[in-house]
Amino acid sequence: MNERAALSLVGGLVSAAGDDAAVVDGTVFTIDMLHDDTDFPAGTTRYTAGWRSVGASLSDVAAMGGDATAAVGVYGAPDFDADALTAFVTGALDVCEDVGAEYVGGDLDGHDEFTVATAAIGRAEDPVCRGGASAGEKLVVTGTLGRTAAAMALFEHGDTELANELFRFRPRVAAGRALAGHATAMMDSSDGLARSLHQLSEASDCGFAVDADSVPVAADLSDLVDDPLDAAVTYGEDFELVATVPEGAVDAVRAATDVPVSVVGDVTESGVTLDGEALPDRGWTH
Amino acid sequence: MNERAALSLVGGLVSAAGDDAAVVDGTVFTIDMLHDDTDFPAGTTRYTAGWRSVGASLSDVAAMGGDATAAVGVYGAPDFDADALTAFVTGALDVCEDVGAEYVGGDLDGHDEFTVATAAIGRAEDPVCRGGASAGEKLVVTGTLGRTAAAMALFEHGDTELANELFRFRPRVAAGRALAGHATAMMDSSDGLARSLHQLSEASDCGFAVDADSVPVAADLSDLVDDPLDAAVTYGEDFELVATVPEGAVDAVRAATDVPVSVVGDVTESGVTLDGEALPDRGWTH
Repeated sequence: MNERAALSLVGGLVSAAGDDAAVVDGTVFTIDMLHDDTDFPAGTTRYTAGWRSVGASLSDVAAMGGDATAAVGVYGAPDFDADALTAFVTGALDVCEDVGAEYVGGDLDGHDEFTVATAAIGRAEDPVCRGGASAGEKLVVTGTLGRTAAAMALFEHGDTELANELFRFRPRVAAGRALAGHATAMMDSSDGLARSLHQLSEASDCGFAVDADSVPVAADLSDLVDDPLDAAVTYGEDFELVATVPEGAVDAVRAATDVPVSVVGDVTESGVTLDGEALPDRGWTH
Repeated sequence: MNERAALSLVGGLVSAAGDDAAVVDGTVFTIDMLHDDTDFPAGTTRYTAGWRSVGASLSDVAAMGGDATAAVGVYGAPDFDADALTAFVTGALDVCEDVGAEYVGGDLDGHDEFTVATAAIGRAEDPVCRGGASAGEKLVVTGTLGRTAAAMALFEHGDTELANELFRFRPRVAAGRALAGHATAMMDSSDGLARSLHQLSEASDCGFAVDADSVPVAADLSDLVDDPLDAAVTYGEDFELVATVPEGAVDAVRAATDVPVSVVGDVTESGVTLDGEALPDRGWTH
């Protein structure tokens, strides 16, 4: 079966599953695995791998409106080169510092394919799930979309320095905290905006009408791909937050965070559309 | 560099590293990665893999004297077979239930080699670290040693049913709680008793004198390997607790848990010996 069917199967077995992270007694808790084959194109530095892997888990905490407190990681590699390992751990430490969390170690594993597992915890007394959106609310997105699509093109072209820089996204923990008091539903955009909206639509039993001109397309993307808007909407792995908020709360959210918050459309009764056309459920499959 | 040198390098970069699990504001937090090549011999069922992987992280919480509250896991496999995935998740749920914790989900990952990452959290207001042992105290071990050595022999002989049963160890969370009020140093025996003692010796700046007759060798082991005592002491991956306690506290520990607690020797000033002979630092390398 495909990954989505498998996730649905797990959801039937594990009552707490189905959001970006689980919440246990006010503690947000999440785990991720990234590896060479699907997540680290040739040219990805170990520093970037450490930053991005740990960042993915911190982003899950952010997506619940949680305040990230700590992260751990497993570095699985065919050999333990001192420089590579130091770079990885430094990236992990730095991304944690960027969001006010603490990187507290983990483990090593001899592994044929470079494989990283990361977990993060945080506090969230009032976590934001995926199921609370209602028609009439506004759909908002943090930052810009398409950074990872741009990075992948740059890795292919051999411009690895800028590609690595784009890969080191800043987890939206502070923006998630700003949204937490207002958002009715939230998740991160790791599967792409289109797929995220289909997931929110299913969880909240609502629809979305996205206005193409409002989508914050990453500046780096326009020279790199034929259809920047399509890449921004469907490529995924940008780890921005996608949330729904009452219209009256948009200004308060913006006032509470330095990260740009774009209103990209409306919550509707049903269907997911982009400028009135159906937006299919396609995007990143891990 | 080898794994131990690499762990030492990480310890120099990450101040919280060096114990079985990190402790952040009273929350114990740990992560592990297991995979086909080194952890799941042919014949290991997916149910056992789920139980054992999650159990490894719960054991880390136990080794800090923590009360395990929740675990998450990533199931990384070349394909997502419904029966295999269901068995894995059921194993994960069951091992959590066995220790009073909750399995709260995780993620899936398409991965050439079957690879599992697990993380667990727990509460520990007074965590037990590795560095507090003093000469004159007693060395204790929970349960029996050599179950995994026996299981590996049984997997080789094709007796996979018993092998799987032995592989599904019960994480010593309750015993760890019983020890927590008394133990001066503690860790789990995943690297084997010999290697564990060398690690405790280094962390606590002490020695150990082990009495061979007192080592609780697993009953299943005697017919399966040439030297049961050696296998029990060095093979590792048994996930029992190895702890030091003041002599006067041994009875209280025993009264507080149903798990057998064996006194296997004494904490000394220096050196690690078995019946007076040097016990070398060898054991499981992950």
